[in-house]
Amino acid sequence: MSSTIRLRRGLLAAALCLALPALAAAASSDKGGTSAYAAVDPMIGTGGDGHTFPGATVPFGMIQLSPDTAMPDVKHAYKWAAGYQYGDSSILGFSHTHFSGSGHSDLGDVLVMPIAGDVKLDPGSPDQPGSGYRSRFDHKSEKAEAGYYAVTLADYDVRAELTAGQRVGWHRYTFPKGKPAHLLLDLRPSIYDYDGKVLWSSLRVHADGTVTGGRTTRGWAPGRQLYFAMRFNQPLASRSLKNRETGVPYKGFSGPGNRAEDVDAMTGRALEGVFDFGDLGKPLIVKVAVSSVSEDNAIANLDKDGAGFDFDARRAEARQSWEKALSTVDLVAPADTRKTFYTSLYHAMISPSLSMDVNGEYRGPDNQVHTAKGFDFYSTWSLWDVYRAQQPLMTLLQPAKSNDFVSSLIAARQSSPFGILPIWAYQGMETWCMIGYHAVPVIADAYMKGIRGYDADAALEAMVASATYGPYGGIDDYMKLGYVPIDRQPEAASKTVEYAFDDWSLAQMAKAMGKDDVAATFSKRAGNWKNSFDTKTGFLRARKSDGNYREPFDPSSAGYGSDYTEGNAWQYSWYVPQDVAGLIDALGGKDAFVKKLDSVFDAKVDPKSFAHVEDITGLIGWYAHGNEPSHQVAYLYDYAGQPWKTQERLVQIMQTQYTPTPTGLVGNDDLGQMSAWYIFTALGFYPVAPGSNQYVIGRPFIEKATLNLPGGKHFVVSADHLDAKHPYVGKVTLNGQPLDRTFVRHEEIVAGGELHFTMQATPAKDWGQTPASLPYSMTPSAP
Amino acid sequence: MSSTIRLRRGLLAAALCLALPALAAAASSDKGGTSAYAAVDPMIGTGGDGHTFPGATVPFGMIQLSPDTAMPDVKHAYKWAAGYQYGDSSILGFSHTHFSGSGHSDLGDVLVMPIAGDVKLDPGSPDQPGSGYRSRFDHKSEKAEAGYYAVTLADYDVRAELTAGQRVGWHRYTFPKGKPAHLLLDLRPSIYDYDGKVLWSSLRVHADGTVTGGRTTRGWAPGRQLYFAMRFNQPLASRSLKNRETGVPYKGFSGPGNRAEDVDAMTGRALEGVFDFGDLGKPLIVKVAVSSVSEDNAIANLDKDGAGFDFDARRAEARQSWEKALSTVDLVAPADTRKTFYTSLYHAMISPSLSMDVNGEYRGPDNQVHTAKGFDFYSTWSLWDVYRAQQPLMTLLQPAKSNDFVSSLIAARQSSPFGILPIWAYQGMETWCMIGYHAVPVIADAYMKGIRGYDADAALEAMVASATYGPYGGIDDYMKLGYVPIDRQPEAASKTVEYAFDDWSLAQMAKAMGKDDVAATFSKRAGNWKNSFDTKTGFLRARKSDGNYREPFDPSSAGYGSDYTEGNAWQYSWYVPQDVAGLIDALGGKDAFVKKLDSVFDAKVDPKSFAHVEDITGLIGWYAHGNEPSHQVAYLYDYAGQPWKTQERLVQIMQTQYTPTPTGLVGNDDLGQMSAWYIFTALGFYPVAPGSNQYVIGRPFIEKATLNLPGGKHFVVSADHLDAKHPYVGKVTLNGQPLDRTFVRHEEIVAGGELHFTMQATPAKDWGQTPASLPYSMTPSAP
Repeated sequence: MSSTIRLRRGLLAAALCLALPALAAAASSDKGGTSAYAAVDPMIGTGGDGHTFPGATVPFGMIQLSPDTAMPDVKHAYKWAAGYQYGDSSILGFSHTHFSGSGHSDLGDVLVMPIAGDVKLDPGSPDQPGSGYRSRFDHKSEKAEAGYYAVTLADYDVRAELTAGQRVGWHRYTFPKGKPAHLLLDLRPSIYDYDGKVLWSSLRVHADGTVTGGRTTRGWAPGRQLYFAMRFNQPLASRSLKNRETGVPYKGFSGPGNRAEDVDAMTGRALEGVFDFGDLGKPLIVKVAVSSVSEDNAIANLDKDGAGFDFDARRAEARQSWEKALSTVDLVAPADTRKTFYTSLYHAMISPSLSMDVNGEYRGPDNQVHTAKGFDFYSTWSLWDVYRAQQPLMTLLQPAKSNDFVSSLIAARQSSPFGILPIWAYQGMETWCMIGYHAVPVIADAYMKGIRGYDADAALEAMVASATYGPYGGIDDYMKLGYVPIDRQPEAASKTVEYAFDDWSLAQMAKAMGKDDVAATFSKRAGNWKNSFDTKTGFLRARKSDGNYREPFDPSSAGYGSDYTEGNAWQYSWYVPQDVAGLIDALGGKDAFVKKLDSVFDAKVDPKSFAHVEDITGLIGWYAHGNEPSHQVAYLYDYAGQPWKTQERLVQIMQTQYTPTPTGLVGNDDLGQMSAWYIFTALGFYPVAPGSNQYVIGRPFIEKATLNLPGGKHFVVSADHLDAKHPYVGKVTLNGQPLDRTFVRHEEIVAGGELHFTMQATPAKDWGQTPASLPYSMTPSAP
Repeated sequence: MSSTIRLRRGLLAAALCLALPALAAAASSDKGGTSAYAAVDPMIGTGGDGHTFPGATVPFGMIQLSPDTAMPDVKHAYKWAAGYQYGDSSILGFSHTHFSGSGHSDLGDVLVMPIAGDVKLDPGSPDQPGSGYRSRFDHKSEKAEAGYYAVTLADYDVRAELTAGQRVGWHRYTFPKGKPAHLLLDLRPSIYDYDGKVLWSSLRVHADGTVTGGRTTRGWAPGRQLYFAMRFNQPLASRSLKNRETGVPYKGFSGPGNRAEDVDAMTGRALEGVFDFGDLGKPLIVKVAVSSVSEDNAIANLDKDGAGFDFDARRAEARQSWEKALSTVDLVAPADTRKTFYTSLYHAMISPSLSMDVNGEYRGPDNQVHTAKGFDFYSTWSLWDVYRAQQPLMTLLQPAKSNDFVSSLIAARQSSPFGILPIWAYQGMETWCMIGYHAVPVIADAYMKGIRGYDADAALEAMVASATYGPYGGIDDYMKLGYVPIDRQPEAASKTVEYAFDDWSLAQMAKAMGKDDVAATFSKRAGNWKNSFDTKTGFLRARKSDGNYREPFDPSSAGYGSDYTEGNAWQYSWYVPQDVAGLIDALGGKDAFVKKLDSVFDAKVDPKSFAHVEDITGLIGWYAHGNEPSHQVAYLYDYAGQPWKTQERLVQIMQTQYTPTPTGLVGNDDLGQMSAWYIFTALGFYPVAPGSNQYVIGRPFIEKATLNLPGGKHFVVSADHLDAKHPYVGKVTLNGQPLDRTFVRHEEIVAGGELHFTMQATPAKDWGQTPASLPYSMTPSAP
């Protein structure tokens, strides 16, 4: 989400025809080649608008230890939402927390930088630190693997290597001989920085050499506290703690001694520590644990999760954890496809992030400390994005984690000041970013798929509480009027349709639990999309509280103040995944529906029309792949009996929107949602309506993919004639039996088996005339 | 401490001669009269420099609920260090935390104000809040008792009553009929306020009507967190939460709804809540618990310590707690003396303050949460002041509390980032205010008096750690050179002599514990005062690290940058309580010593000479009673065989420095130290050297005082001929036996008995020729 628009010029030219030769070329190259692990390239998405980070993390880990090339002020921060931009040529330092692919941002906590030789620091200002210690680097010296990152800092001739555990970041710095080694720790900089963002920070050197501290920041999650504990494999020769802020008005505070090198602890808003090790004969290993709760917990995390100083062993463990996570899918595919696919899988398993200390304590949305009992608490919930495909992908590949995710959502709700589920949360705290109550479909989807390792009654209670909490996003009016009125709430049309979908998913779960009254209430609410759909113009539109649609109406109008969230009527009018048949009716039947869909993709859009809007990227006509409301649109042709058009559009998207290069992601990866879309689409199906247990079939982009599922089951997706000359699905079989419908059920996949496609050169107009549509399968999978 | 000077003009004129008629007049009035409780007047010290507060608290309680008349910015804040100044005519609100008699200040947390009728709030600015809700009041409507305060808010015609429990503040507001009742909660104002002091705050209305929140402030204890939980006896008709700060730069944060009346929770730096109750038929009761740890703990404190809404019952409990505390001393004395004495006793038992939640959790100097095991954690340690007499008074009257105090000091040291005992701490956190390591004599004094309910080994370890922590206040140089050098540390002469006394007290405890090596080390250090005492000029002076005294030397020079802490050479040269005999030698014998002492009291001092110095008040010549370094000086004549001069000086001080009026305290009460001096002196003896178990005899000012000691013992101090015509001690008996020495031992007091004085008209030059001096009794009291 959220960016200034970067229109992909030439995307239209690069569409279907040009894409086919590319497919053909790819098909002739390596088909199994390197390991899944070796195929991951964390550099993908680090340039342009991808906003991924190249550094070290483990699946769903608390630590994202990564180089930061800039942390500019808030006006210029969008480009550096992950701290790193591939186009940059110098590194500020290495910090321990990052979002993967977010639009808005924060974090960049506990930034360290090795310095060889004299330390000459420019004091800078609180909001522009680091001018004194930044170092140039060359991409040739970089090595990025899942869980490992290395670079040579040219100005210091220091080789920097990073790896990560669940709660500990590991650094290995090899200094040049003959120059004294230092480590600088700067608590000032922050991703999305601005003056006054650090409300308070502390720094302390313990008698045993452990360095602890923390800071409270006034960022995206206001008042967020983040603590750390740091240890070195070498004794400190000396150290100094500095407060770069001057003019502190309170009297009497100086602390013991008055020399920076004597001070053992310091608090303030602009703290910096320099740790000196002299001329080292061996690499400096630094290990850092973080905690949202306290310094004591950070120390406990370091004690338990960070024993010893064996960097290579920790790196091997990080690799193993990724090898295990990536082993859920085996591919037969060309090298570039493998690279894109496994990197997508890697990006899809970075968050939600562990946000719980070794003693089970975590910080909740009330900014208070709670203890998780019987589950691991995860946060970093970009729910508006990830409920669509990233979380459904986890129900398939990581159902055990899904249990923790659902339990975490319930727990967050139980310590919410509002008694509702998270909206956009991280490190346990709420940002209120984006719209909807999309924790509801995340939970419903898991429940319907038979994932039940949490308190289902508490879950349903939380879902109903969230869906009926009047003060949030116009829900009070939504419940009264059946739609959100634009004169009382911005982006009212988007809110109405997203609430209606969330309501539908809630109804499915309630019905499956035998709560018929709840199911009836929310089934009815699921039809509310009709209250905001203007059949005269054929567009989703926002109504006022007096019942009239807002005038004047321009379907190309988008952005804040309009009826839609990061989109316009061309994009948002398709958002009725729970009732595509109803939408077809509303648009006047299948032909009109298809015609209008075509006009979305084939429109000639003036790039200037989005110049004022943040984060509408990846345009194909009006279709904006870089923005999530479009993500199900290409699959909708299936519902109108023209699956070959879905297949055409998918080729168009797959060939233009994903390339295995640093600038290969056309929009923010959005915490794995863009990547999860790729994975599903490459496999040949997509969860258009999470909670339905149905995946809508597109077409496969991989010759053979094996999903290695829990319980030893294997589900194979294979394709004959998968090349550029055969872009259409001819026949489909499931376990050898012909499959005419354009969807596959979750229970069919988890049972194991094979979905086989025969591709052909021309559209197969006799295949796929049974769409996934209402009534969706209402039978939940067995637990 | 710390003030601009307020010279008591006319003090010299009001000395000995004028004082005698006053004594005579007093002696003829009521002698037993009102109860001890009724004699307490919390208004004493609320005007001028006393800095006491008139509001409600219980002995050593966590809550000090009191009206604030102003919380001005830091440049004008000194006068309002307790939030209230008797000369003011309007009240801003009632807040829950206050220091009693401090010089520098902070607190004023959780300010509330009842409003009758329409709420018309001037938004103000973050650092100048309250212009919209302040109300005028008249002193005639005020009623202040120990544990209870009431006032009528004239602008609203609201009767406001306050009382307190250990962790809960209770409010009763009686609104005029026909006007809607509101309670305003303002998290912005702070005592010693300045722009940006509130780093972060939060406010939340729970479904059950409980209001919680907290704030982190950048004040005297930087980064201090204070949470609260509040409940009302009436349902909320409506409420609104407001953030008065504008221009918050982060995107996406709005929280549920966009109307103040819908918002259930809010975070920010300038929060305000308005709670509406409609037209009430009965008083509004508000109860508020605080916690340094968390909102959850504040709720738990409220649940456990704040059941129901019976204001009168809580007021009665507060009264009972004070009646019990005050019952430790019975007096036969005139009404004015009773008032001054019992108010002093009240002021001496306000702090240290409980700083531990009902679950045992407290915040330590590392700003982390710890749990007290087997003791109650107390903080608010103005140690530079209270080690002199307030803490010794507690060893006599409240030995059980002394155990908790010592345990709290040890616990604070164990979670100190520096591993040392508190210096000036509150709510668990350190301010580094003032000099010395005076937790050491507090512990030593308790140990020597047989108070042993703590880990003595841990205590001694903590004391040694504090006394040898090089980076603090030049201790590294002090250990090397035997004095603190003025070219490396300000106020070096004061530091040297205070360290030497602290060392002496440490040595006494070490010796009593059989740690002879430790005792030897610190006994030697106790003599370090000689290294900074210039026998040529006869003054304590600061030396440079090259060994030379700093030149030029002016014994009247005082203040920051000079050799002394809040004093000059005339005042500080007497600070050798551990070796007065040595000091007499250094000054050339008893006659020279007495002559120099006389020149202190009889000097004609130009008031301008202190115009630049903070907090030197209560001057009699150079003697500054408002500042603690003078507190033992009048007793020193005893050591030179001229006790009648001690008696004369004490009359001079008692008659000029304490009056039972709002402006009756000539200097800051300093958390009970000024009051404790009064109590000891009125009883007839004073702990010149805490840790010695000896009280130096002055003269009694009360006809009969009975100390009701633990274990059912009673120690009576009585006097014959106590009137203005008989200002001198003639004879003294202890339990009927003549007592010629000028000191009484702690063990003699706690055994029970009677110390009887016969006063006479002329100096008794044959009495009291055996002074309390080295060797002090080295035998500790039996545990």
